[in-house]
Amino acid sequence: MKFNYPNGSNFVNHKGNMHDRNNHFTRYGDRGMTLEHEINESNQYYLSKGMAVIHKKPTPIQIVKVDYPKRSAAMIKEAYFRKASTTDYNGVYDGYYIDFDAKETKNKTSFPLSNFHQHQIDHMKACVEQGGICFALIKFTLTNEIYVLESNDLFYYWDEQFKGGKKSISKPTIDKLGYKIDYSLNPIIPYLNAVRKIILKYKEI
Amino acid sequence: MKFNYPNGSNFVNHKGNMHDRNNHFTRYGDRGMTLEHEINESNQYYLSKGMAVIHKKPTPIQIVKVDYPKRSAAMIKEAYFRKASTTDYNGVYDGYYIDFDAKETKNKTSFPLSNFHQHQIDHMKACVEQGGICFALIKFTLTNEIYVLESNDLFYYWDEQFKGGKKSISKPTIDKLGYKIDYSLNPIIPYLNAVRKIILKYKEI
Repeated sequence: MKFNYPNGSNFVNHKGNMHDRNNHFTRYGDRGMTLEHEINESNQYYLSKGMAVIHKKPTPIQIVKVDYPKRSAAMIKEAYFRKASTTDYNGVYDGYYIDFDAKETKNKTSFPLSNFHQHQIDHMKACVEQGGICFALIKFTLTNEIYVLESNDLFYYWDEQFKGGKKSISKPTIDKLGYKIDYSLNPIIPYLNAVRKIILKYKEI
Repeated sequence: MKFNYPNGSNFVNHKGNMHDRNNHFTRYGDRGMTLEHEINESNQYYLSKGMAVIHKKPTPIQIVKVDYPKRSAAMIKEAYFRKASTTDYNGVYDGYYIDFDAKETKNKTSFPLSNFHQHQIDHMKACVEQGGICFALIKFTLTNEIYVLESNDLFYYWDEQFKGGKKSISKPTIDKLGYKIDYSLNPIIPYLNAVRKIILKYKEI
């Protein structure tokens, strides 16, 4: 059973248990891992090899009621999901601040910009201003294709939509501007390869 | 009424409401703001001035049970606080990855190292390896004094305690090695002043 997460990610209920998408991941049947799980595993690999320190931020929760039973852990009895004010992933690689969000689409021919929210774009713009490396990690789920799209390219199309531009970025455009990431064994999603290319590009300018 | 938060921070129950230390802060009476509130306000100031993008990470929550009432927001019915695997604050300033944790002590003469956990030290060590700027923001609550202690100094005393060293860092040592931060109007805690000095120090080496 799959629930829609407030921010668009999936929330998986497996064997009757609720799984926090931050902390508990389930390899469910033959359907493979969630994109989030794949990224977290990749980050774990990068961390274990001393290559980067990048983590997913916890899901923001608005806590309303907590019980404090004697001699046992505080139990949250009422809480709600909150909208994140930043992107989901950040950290440090080779002296660079890294910041990105991961988005999936079932669309075959384009990536709908509605996957992003204005505050996420604003956040990435502010990070880029400070010299951070920001991008979107986009997965086309029907074809299992993953791209890293640099934030400046994302900003361009984001801003264009408010000037009469399209509400999506076509797949050929993403293929041309972005960096395609092939699934591998370890890490599952070797997205630092694209990050290195982005860094090199800016060093050359 | 004050509760002890699992990771050592305070959790304030004010007027019968539970306040999530991430998102809801209460100026309670004449007792002033919490340290977390002061830091968040300072980060908000830095963000608004385009000086840095630094945020507190949400508190990690282990979700067990969620209700999905029709036509209204998903309600978390059972959840628990989890131990954070990283520090609480990170972001980017002037091209540098910034990572720190804030700790308060009621101790007058020293800062007990038990305020930190091994995994937080490990996280900061990994970030420093990647070229990040890491530190502890330490508040002596009885005297309202705040210091930024660079992570390398923290690591030294942390490691020493396992070789027969003290379980705390004396206040004179912190005063000598750290950067004292005077409260100001805007930002309330101008800790970027210390960050600049740390960056300069490493540029000179």
